[in-house]
Amino acid sequence: MKDKFYKHIVDLQKIICSKFEKIDDSAVFNEDVWKRKEGGGGITKIMEGGHVIEKGGVNISKVYGKLPKSMQKQLNTNDKEFFACGLSLVIHPMNPMIPTVHANWRYFEMYDNKGNVSDSWFGGGLDLTPYYVFEDDIIHFHKICKQTCDKYDISFYKKFKQNCDDYFFNSHRKEARGVGGLFFDYCKKNEKMTIEDWYNFIYDSSNSFIPSYIPLMEKRKILDYTKSQKNWQELRRGRYVEFNLVHDKGTLFGLKTNGRIESILMSLPPSVKWRYDYVPKKNSEESKLIEILTKPKNWIK
Amino acid sequence: MKDKFYKHIVDLQKIICSKFEKIDDSAVFNEDVWKRKEGGGGITKIMEGGHVIEKGGVNISKVYGKLPKSMQKQLNTNDKEFFACGLSLVIHPMNPMIPTVHANWRYFEMYDNKGNVSDSWFGGGLDLTPYYVFEDDIIHFHKICKQTCDKYDISFYKKFKQNCDDYFFNSHRKEARGVGGLFFDYCKKNEKMTIEDWYNFIYDSSNSFIPSYIPLMEKRKILDYTKSQKNWQELRRGRYVEFNLVHDKGTLFGLKTNGRIESILMSLPPSVKWRYDYVPKKNSEESKLIEILTKPKNWIK
Repeated sequence: MKDKFYKHIVDLQKIICSKFEKIDDSAVFNEDVWKRKEGGGGITKIMEGGHVIEKGGVNISKVYGKLPKSMQKQLNTNDKEFFACGLSLVIHPMNPMIPTVHANWRYFEMYDNKGNVSDSWFGGGLDLTPYYVFEDDIIHFHKICKQTCDKYDISFYKKFKQNCDDYFFNSHRKEARGVGGLFFDYCKKNEKMTIEDWYNFIYDSSNSFIPSYIPLMEKRKILDYTKSQKNWQELRRGRYVEFNLVHDKGTLFGLKTNGRIESILMSLPPSVKWRYDYVPKKNSEESKLIEILTKPKNWIK
Repeated sequence: MKDKFYKHIVDLQKIICSKFEKIDDSAVFNEDVWKRKEGGGGITKIMEGGHVIEKGGVNISKVYGKLPKSMQKQLNTNDKEFFACGLSLVIHPMNPMIPTVHANWRYFEMYDNKGNVSDSWFGGGLDLTPYYVFEDDIIHFHKICKQTCDKYDISFYKKFKQNCDDYFFNSHRKEARGVGGLFFDYCKKNEKMTIEDWYNFIYDSSNSFIPSYIPLMEKRKILDYTKSQKNWQELRRGRYVEFNLVHDKGTLFGLKTNGRIESILMSLPPSVKWRYDYVPKKNSEESKLIEILTKPKNWIK
């Protein structure tokens, strides 16, 4: 299973990067291959300063070896060996009419004293962070999320959409980071789904990334925008930073356990602003976004 | 004591703001008076978009009432009532040749069941975060810090300087946030110092802020700088954000206990950049800063 999934994310990283390079055509992804002292490593692909993509990262990593104490505690286990691999991406577009997107698909294996797999699970998801609200775009994204889910279990979309709203919430601001998508974790074999079924689910979910996001990017990249709209995007990116550094468990875990800092923090936007107590004008396009983030809604009936 | 100290910070806020307004002369501090539902409130003074000060905040607050559970736990006490007041400031200059400065002086009182003061202490400090190294500036700042300390105890400067280096450390980057200054906490009466002595120490330390920082600002505000030097400042401000959101106990405590968000996050810089794995050229002025932050040094023999 681990080799099958790793091969999939290696292929998918290439496909996603080449798709973005085609759309941008002014910049390419630079590859940074890194090794992990304790076992494994990764391939970080970064694009900066493109006309369409101001900053974007598409990373894969495969790490294994002794389970760090901190992870033993978090996972509440006595197992001493682990394997984990996954693909993570964050795309910060130049044009504020295109939403930022984040996605992650990952697989874990734990081993008992005899080296047998004692536990294994998938996790991940994808979510959208717009600066201006195009309802069609958001609905399109959620529809594709739901299609993937419905193939496996009619209850998945509702559950994983709720998980996503709950997780990507800037509690200190009392607002969502974005308009959600899917978030799932500890997807283990159970009476309904074998680990093969979960693999297929993750495989479909990860393959649905391109059709869920690329059409929005294509449609909105040609829109004009003003300096003040760019400014709004940079202010909102501040909330993205706040979420990732204050609340995101994955980021904090990485920072506090000697993870590969640059690969973790590639999620941070290229240019960000903070102003004191900035509130957009009533009934403006900007205030419409705030309304939606304050009360997460159901995008599909 | 609490009235005496509060009166001092009210006066000092006015003095510091008027000093900065005189130096900037293109912008003024806007006042935002806020109330705390559970008791107390504050006066937040913010300057944005000045020619010299790109963003600066000088806040005072006085809060009291029931001690929140989270604070009971942190302070390891059963006391149920508290009083706290303090002045906090962060100044982000426009010119990358001027360091960012942060300072804070605060006073706490705790009350037993009968309403008597059961414990009281002062805390605070001041520290400098330069983007380019002017050794004279840093030595000047530390000299004034040491002068204040030496008046009270010849061991204070060494101890409080070390506290500052330890506290303002971006452990995930293995580098200091800046070049330090002083940091002290739980300054309670003991065999050597009465609470009056500590008041005098804090009074002198807070009054030393203007002579420690204003000369650097005056001297460096007239220096020319390039676009690439401004860019370096914005990249380094990213590390300031990382420290404040990932490591700073005060910030995190405020964010997680329903503090006044805008007053807490006024410390965040006006414009910030993140680039993937940016490393300055060998032997450049920028790399000189990194060297100093990687190995905190003693500025005074």
